[in-house]
Amino acid sequence: MDIYQYIEQLGQQARQASRVLAKAETAAKNHALHAIADHVENQASALQSANQLDLDAGKQKGLDAALLDRLTLTPARINAMATGLREIAALPDPVGEISGLTYRPSGIQLGQMRVPLGVIGIIYESRPNVTVDAAGLCLKSGNATILRGGSEALHSNKAIAQCVQYGLRDAGLPETAVQLVETTDREAVGQLITLPEYVDVIVPRGGKGLIERISQDARVPVIKHLDGICHVYVDAEADLSMATDIAFNAKCHRYGVCNAMETLLVNGQIAAQLLPTLAEQFRNEGVVLRGCAETRKILPEIDVATEEDWNTEYLAPVLSIRIVQNIDEAMDHIHQYSSGHTETIVTENYGLARRFLREVDSSSVMVNASTRFADGFEYGLGAEIGISTDKLHARGPVGLEGLTSQKWIVLGSGQIRK
Amino acid sequence: MDIYQYIEQLGQQARQASRVLAKAETAAKNHALHAIADHVENQASALQSANQLDLDAGKQKGLDAALLDRLTLTPARINAMATGLREIAALPDPVGEISGLTYRPSGIQLGQMRVPLGVIGIIYESRPNVTVDAAGLCLKSGNATILRGGSEALHSNKAIAQCVQYGLRDAGLPETAVQLVETTDREAVGQLITLPEYVDVIVPRGGKGLIERISQDARVPVIKHLDGICHVYVDAEADLSMATDIAFNAKCHRYGVCNAMETLLVNGQIAAQLLPTLAEQFRNEGVVLRGCAETRKILPEIDVATEEDWNTEYLAPVLSIRIVQNIDEAMDHIHQYSSGHTETIVTENYGLARRFLREVDSSSVMVNASTRFADGFEYGLGAEIGISTDKLHARGPVGLEGLTSQKWIVLGSGQIRK
Repeated sequence: MDIYQYIEQLGQQARQASRVLAKAETAAKNHALHAIADHVENQASALQSANQLDLDAGKQKGLDAALLDRLTLTPARINAMATGLREIAALPDPVGEISGLTYRPSGIQLGQMRVPLGVIGIIYESRPNVTVDAAGLCLKSGNATILRGGSEALHSNKAIAQCVQYGLRDAGLPETAVQLVETTDREAVGQLITLPEYVDVIVPRGGKGLIERISQDARVPVIKHLDGICHVYVDAEADLSMATDIAFNAKCHRYGVCNAMETLLVNGQIAAQLLPTLAEQFRNEGVVLRGCAETRKILPEIDVATEEDWNTEYLAPVLSIRIVQNIDEAMDHIHQYSSGHTETIVTENYGLARRFLREVDSSSVMVNASTRFADGFEYGLGAEIGISTDKLHARGPVGLEGLTSQKWIVLGSGQIRK
Repeated sequence: MDIYQYIEQLGQQARQASRVLAKAETAAKNHALHAIADHVENQASALQSANQLDLDAGKQKGLDAALLDRLTLTPARINAMATGLREIAALPDPVGEISGLTYRPSGIQLGQMRVPLGVIGIIYESRPNVTVDAAGLCLKSGNATILRGGSEALHSNKAIAQCVQYGLRDAGLPETAVQLVETTDREAVGQLITLPEYVDVIVPRGGKGLIERISQDARVPVIKHLDGICHVYVDAEADLSMATDIAFNAKCHRYGVCNAMETLLVNGQIAAQLLPTLAEQFRNEGVVLRGCAETRKILPEIDVATEEDWNTEYLAPVLSIRIVQNIDEAMDHIHQYSSGHTETIVTENYGLARRFLREVDSSSVMVNASTRFADGFEYGLGAEIGISTDKLHARGPVGLEGLTSQKWIVLGSGQIRK
C-alpha cells in the first residue's frame, strides 16, 4: 500500500468512527478516558522503554538538548498525562447541548445543538504527551482523530497510542476513533491536509515554519496561531505598582510561551516614574531591554528598538519598550504589530478600559491582568488543543467547545411553509 | 493603476474603515441603514434608469429570460430593498454583546465579547438587490464590505452603491465602509480572494461553478454552500397525512431553492399506504418522480432512480424516492448523499425523533416540519448573507451573528500568574 492509500484508508476509517463517536454516550466516552488514564499509569515502564528508543536515536542524530528534553517521558510527565485525561473526563460533555430553543411565529420550535466537527487531524512535533492530550480532547468532544507526531517520537507515540486503543476497546468504542500515522514519510502530512472528504479540520502544533507550511498547503480548515506578539499598555491613570507587577509577570513568568509580553507600551505622562524601577527589576532578572527614542531618554543605557523588534516574538528574555502619547497611539501600535493573541491595558480609568476592551481586535483582551492568563487551564476549558488567532470559529484557547460547532434543530408538529 | 493595485487599495481602505465600524455606535449604524433605505426609495427612478442600461445591454448580449428577470429592479423590488434595510436596523446589534462573564479561581473575571470579523468580500451574480442586503447586514454587524457584483449589473450596482455612500455620509461613517469593485475585469475576483491582510472572509453567492472556483482558489476563509440535496424521511410511525403535506410542501413550495427536498426516503412498512396518494399529488403538480426498485413495485409507472439521482440537486420539479427498512438505512443514505443542508424526519416516535436530531450531521435537522423552513427569515435572523454547509464557524442560514465571532475578555484587579 502506498502512502496515499494508507492515509486515505486512515481517513475513511476515521470518518466511519466519527459517526459512532458523535452519538456515543457521555458515560462511554468518560469510561474510555479513565481506562486510558489507568492504562497509561500501569504501562509507565513500557512507555519509558519505548521512549528510550526515541531518546537513543535522537542522541545519535544529534538532536539538541531542548528537543531531547521535550521528547522525554519522565514519570512525572506520564502521571500528568493520566491526570489530564481524568480532568477531561470530569468536564461537562459539550455534545448535544441544546440552546435557545424557542417558538417562531410559524409554530416551529427552533434551537441550536452543539455537535462534533467530525474528524480532526493533529500534526505536532516532538512532545509525545500531545498524543494523549489531543486524543482525550477530541474523544470527549465526539471527534475522531488522526495523529501525526514527529518522526523522532514515533516509538513513544506508538506506545501511547496502544494505551488509547486499549481504553477505547474497554469502553466499547471503535479503535479507529484515534489513529496514529505510523510512518515517518513526510508525504503523509501533505496527504492528510488535502483530504476534505475525510478530515474536517487540521490543528498544527509546533514551530512557526511547520504551521506556515501547513496553512499554505491545506485544503481543509486549519485552527492555528503563528505568533504571540502580546502587548501590555500602561496608561497614565494606571496604578504604577500594579503596572510593574503585571509587566514583570507578563514578561518573566515564562519566556518561551506564546502569551508572554513582547512589547511594553507606556503612556508618556508616567513613563519617567514607571520605567526606571521596572527596568531595574528586568535587569536583575537578566532581561535585555530595547526602546524607542523617547524610552531611551529615560533609559539611555538600553539599545534602540527597530521596526524588526516591534514585529518579533522573542520567546526569550528580551523586551521592546515604546512610549506613546495616549490610548489611540497604543491601539494603533497594537493594530499594526500585534499577532492578535493577547493584549492588556493597565488603567484605573473606566472609559479607557471600556474602549480598550471593545476596540482591540485580539483573541484575548484584558484589563489589569497579566497576559499569561490567556490559557485553556486558566480559562477553565480544561486542556487546550491549541490557540487560535484567526477570526472565524474559535478564537483564543481552543478547548472542547472549539472542537464542536452548532447545527440548527427544528421541532415541529407538521408545519409547512405558506 | 493596474487591477492588482486597485483591489489592494480597496482592501487597505476597507481595513481602515473596519476599525471605525467596529467601534461605531448602534445608533450611527441604524441611522445609516434608515438613511440608505430612504435614499433608495427617493432615488427609485434613478435606480430604474441605471438598471435599464444593464437590461438593454443584457438583451443585446442575449442573456436568457431568467437572468434578465433576476437583473430587473421593479418598483416592488426597490421597496423590498428599503424594507429589508429597515428590518436590519430593527434587529438587535450583535457587536459588543458580552456573555458568560464569571469569576475564575485566580480572581480574574472571564467572558466573551461578540466582535465583527473585519472585512467581508461578497462576490455575487446578477441580482442587484444583493448589493443592498449584503451591505446592510455587514454594516449592522460592524464589518466593512467589498462588493463584487456581476458585470451585467454594474450600472445598477453603482447606482445602489451611491445610495449606500449617501447613507454612510449622512450617519458620519466612512464611505469606504462599503465599496463596490467598479470594474468588470475578472482578475478582480482572483485578487480579492487572495488578500488575507485585507479581507477576513469571502461570501460567494451564485451558481455552483462560481462557488467551486472561489473555494478552490481562495486564500481567505469562505462561507458557502455548494448544494442543497435535502431529504425527508417518512418513518413507519409517521402521521401519514402530515407526511404527505410536508413532503409536498418541501418539494413543491418552490423548486429552484436550496432548501427544497430532492430525495424522499420512505419506510417500507408504510410505503404502500403513503406513496400512491402522494404520487398523485405530485403528478397533478407536474413533478416527475424517479424511484428505487422497491418504489417501482408500488409506482410501476415511474422511471428508475440511478446513483446520479441521489447525488443531484434538481432545483426543478423532479423528485427521487427510495424505500428504506428503518431509520438506520435512512440515515446511512443521508450520510452518503446529503450535502449537509437540511433533513427532516416525519415520525410520532419519540426515540427515533431524538436519534435523528442527534445523529444527522446537517446544518438544519428537523422533526415534523418542511425543509423549506431552513431560511434566515423563518429562523428570525432577519436577512441572511448566505447559507453555510461547512462545519466550522456558522452553519445553516448566516445572519448578523454569523458575521461576528467572539473574543475573550478578562477583567482583573492586578492579577498575575503564580
